[in-house]
Amino acid sequence: MPKISDKGQLMPSSPIRKLAPYAVAARARGIKVFPLNIGQPDLPTPPAFWERLSNLDMSVLAYAPSDGLPAYKTKWVEYYNRLGADIKSADVLVTSGASEALAIGMMACLDPGDEIIIPEPLYANYIGFATASGVEIKPVTTTIDDGFALPPMQSLVNLIGPRTKAILICNPNNPTGYLYNRQELETLRHLVLRYDLFLFVDEVYREFVYDGREHISVLTLEGLEKNALVFDSISKRFSACGARIGVLISRNREVMETAMKFAQARLSPPSLGQLAGEPLFDLPPSYYAEILQEYDERRQYLVNRLQAMEGVRCPLPGGAFYAIVELPVDDTDRFCQWLLESFDLNGKTLMMAPASGFYSSDELGHNQARVAYVLKKEDLAQAMDCLEAGLAAYPGRTYAAARRESFNPS
Amino acid sequence: MPKISDKGQLMPSSPIRKLAPYAVAARARGIKVFPLNIGQPDLPTPPAFWERLSNLDMSVLAYAPSDGLPAYKTKWVEYYNRLGADIKSADVLVTSGASEALAIGMMACLDPGDEIIIPEPLYANYIGFATASGVEIKPVTTTIDDGFALPPMQSLVNLIGPRTKAILICNPNNPTGYLYNRQELETLRHLVLRYDLFLFVDEVYREFVYDGREHISVLTLEGLEKNALVFDSISKRFSACGARIGVLISRNREVMETAMKFAQARLSPPSLGQLAGEPLFDLPPSYYAEILQEYDERRQYLVNRLQAMEGVRCPLPGGAFYAIVELPVDDTDRFCQWLLESFDLNGKTLMMAPASGFYSSDELGHNQARVAYVLKKEDLAQAMDCLEAGLAAYPGRTYAAARRESFNPS
Repeated sequence: MPKISDKGQLMPSSPIRKLAPYAVAARARGIKVFPLNIGQPDLPTPPAFWERLSNLDMSVLAYAPSDGLPAYKTKWVEYYNRLGADIKSADVLVTSGASEALAIGMMACLDPGDEIIIPEPLYANYIGFATASGVEIKPVTTTIDDGFALPPMQSLVNLIGPRTKAILICNPNNPTGYLYNRQELETLRHLVLRYDLFLFVDEVYREFVYDGREHISVLTLEGLEKNALVFDSISKRFSACGARIGVLISRNREVMETAMKFAQARLSPPSLGQLAGEPLFDLPPSYYAEILQEYDERRQYLVNRLQAMEGVRCPLPGGAFYAIVELPVDDTDRFCQWLLESFDLNGKTLMMAPASGFYSSDELGHNQARVAYVLKKEDLAQAMDCLEAGLAAYPGRTYAAARRESFNPS
Repeated sequence: MPKISDKGQLMPSSPIRKLAPYAVAARARGIKVFPLNIGQPDLPTPPAFWERLSNLDMSVLAYAPSDGLPAYKTKWVEYYNRLGADIKSADVLVTSGASEALAIGMMACLDPGDEIIIPEPLYANYIGFATASGVEIKPVTTTIDDGFALPPMQSLVNLIGPRTKAILICNPNNPTGYLYNRQELETLRHLVLRYDLFLFVDEVYREFVYDGREHISVLTLEGLEKNALVFDSISKRFSACGARIGVLISRNREVMETAMKFAQARLSPPSLGQLAGEPLFDLPPSYYAEILQEYDERRQYLVNRLQAMEGVRCPLPGGAFYAIVELPVDDTDRFCQWLLESFDLNGKTLMMAPASGFYSSDELGHNQARVAYVLKKEDLAQAMDCLEAGLAAYPGRTYAAARRESFNPS
C-alpha cells in the first residue's frame, strides 16, 4: 500500500474541530451541546446579503478573475482607505477565506525550512499552514499573567536567526482576545525594518474592539510598504463564514505578483460570496455599533461568570470574541472530552477548544481552553452553568483534589 | 526589502490566463475577442441552481463541516455509485473546486522531492500545484501523431524511481481531449499495484465523451481501493465554475484522514455552492444528453475547420471540450499575443492558450495551442475565420515562409 506523506503525518488535527465527533455522539443521546469551541457567530448575516443573492441577474455562474471581481475589490480598497490606509486595487487579492490568504502569503514569502515568529497561544491553523509549507514556527510565549501582551522586544530579537523571514500576529488576537497597542506595533515595525522581515497581520477581528479602544491596522503604519501583509475576511464581521471570502493585501508589488501566480493555479475565488458580499460594505456605522454592543455584553457576562468560579482565571479580552480561560483541571483535552462524553446538567453541556492545540510548544496550554462568545446571553448563561457544575463534578479537578487532600492529609 | 520565496519565483504564470492583459487592452481598443483560451462554458447554469439560491431558508451563512455538508456529500456518493463505484460518505471530501482537491491530495500523499509521473501536454495548473508542494513532475510525452494516446508501458516504467509516489492522468484529458480506453487504464492499474504508487485521476470532464464511447472511472477498477484518488467538480458539467465546488474521493482511509487535516486547516469549503449545487444532481439524463450534443456539434465543427487550414493539424478529441492544435507558426506564444496586439478581422480576434505552458519539458509545445470549444457555433465560426486570416497575415508563419522560399529559391 502506498504511503501518505511525512508532511501529512506531521499535520495536526484541528483542536477546534477534533472534539466534533463527541459532540455529535452527545447530541445523538439527546444532550444539548453549547458550541463555544468555534468562532461561528450566531448573529444573522445581514439581509442585504440574502437580497443580493436572490436577485443575481445572470445565467452563467462563471469563474471570477483569479484576483477577484473588480467591483468587489474596489469595496475593500474603499474600506481600508477609510481607515487611513493608502491602497489600490492591485494591492488586493481576493481569496477563499482568510485561510487561503494566509496559505498563499506564506508560500509567496517563505520556503521550507524558513522560520516565522508568532506569539503563542496562537490560532491553531497557523500551525497547519506552516506544516503544509514546511515552515518552522518560532513561538514567543505570552502569558495569562500579563493578559497575553506582547513580551519585551528582546524576547523577539532572541528568536531571530538567519532563516527568520517573518513575524505573524493576529490583531485583535485569536485565541486570546488581546488587542495590540500602538507601542507594541511600533516595536514590531522597528524589528521588521531592522532585520528585513515580513510582518504578517491577521486583522479579521478588526471591528471587534471594546472599551472605546482603537484598532490600529498595520497598513496605516509608515514605512512598511514592502514588509506588511494583511489577511482579512468578511466571515466574522458580516457573520458570513460560509461564503469563504477573504483577502490578502500588500503594497509590495513583488509579493502580490507572486501571490497572483499561486492564485492563478487555483483559478478563482468563489463568485457567489463576492457578489452577495458587495452590498455589505455599504452598511451604515450603526450596523457595526450594534454587533459590537451585543458582543461586548456577552464578553462582560462571560468573563464575570468565569472569574467568579473557584480556581478559574480569565483576563478581560480587549477585542475579538474569544477568551483563553485557565481551568483547575488535570488536562483540558481530557476535561473538554469528558464534558461531552460523561457529563450533562439537566440534559445540557458545552464544547470548548482545549488550548494545547493553540501552543506550538508541546508542554503548554494543558490547563487552558479557548471559549468563543458567539452565542446569545441566555445560552451563554446556561453554558456557564454547565461549566461550573462540570468543574465541580469532574474527577480530575485539581482545585477540589487539592482541597480534599487538605481535608484528609493522610 | 525582504525577499519572496524561491518557490514563489519558480511558480509558473498560468498559460491560460497570462495573455488576459492583452485581451483587456484589445477590448479597450474596441476589438471583440473570442475567448478560446479558457474552459469557461457559455451554457447556462441550470435554473435549479438559481432557484435554490433564491430560496435558501436560513439567517446565518455558517461554515460547512470541513469535509462538506452531509446532504451534499450524499449526492456525490449516489452519483458515483450509479456509475458502478462502491463509495460511502467518508470517502468524499468537498473542496474549493477540483483545484483544492488536487492541492490537498498532493500534500497528503507526496513530500518535497517526491516525483509524480504525468502524461504531457498536461493541465498547466498541475505544474503549479507541484511547484507549491515541492513535488517534481516526471513527464511522459504524448504526441499529436498518436492522437495523444498513452505511450507504451515501458516508457512509464523507465520513469519510475525510488522517489516516484504517484501517476496522474486527466481523463478525458485537458488539454488534449484524449479519452483513455480500458486497456490504457489496465496498464496504469498494473503499474501502480506493481510499484506501489498512488493513481491520481482528474475526472472533471467525465460527462463529455463523444461518438458513443465509454468513460471508465478509476473508482470502478478492481483492486485500487488503496491506490486511487479521484478529483471531480461541478464546474464544467453544470456550468458552475464560479461556485468553486469540487471533491476529492478515495477509499484509502489513511489518505482521507490525512486529507481531512489539511481540510480542517482551511476550515470549510464554500457553503453556497454546496447548497445550490445539491439539486443539480437530480437533473434528468436529458440534461446531460443535451449539453453533450451541443459540445459534440461544436467539436466537429471546430476540428473540421482547423483540419481544413493549410499547415494546421488537430486530432479529433474523444472527450472534454479542448483540442491541442498544431499551427504553422514560429512560436505560438508570440502568435497568440500577436493575435491580440496586432491583428483583427473586421474588428474581431481570438484568444488561445499557447501550449508551451502545458508541457513540463521546456522545449516542447512551441508550435501548439490549446483551444476550448466553449462558445456557440456562430462565435466559433467567426473565431475560426479570425484564426485563418491571422495565420495568413502573421509575419512568423512558417508554412507560408517555406512556400515563399520555394517560389524564390535564391
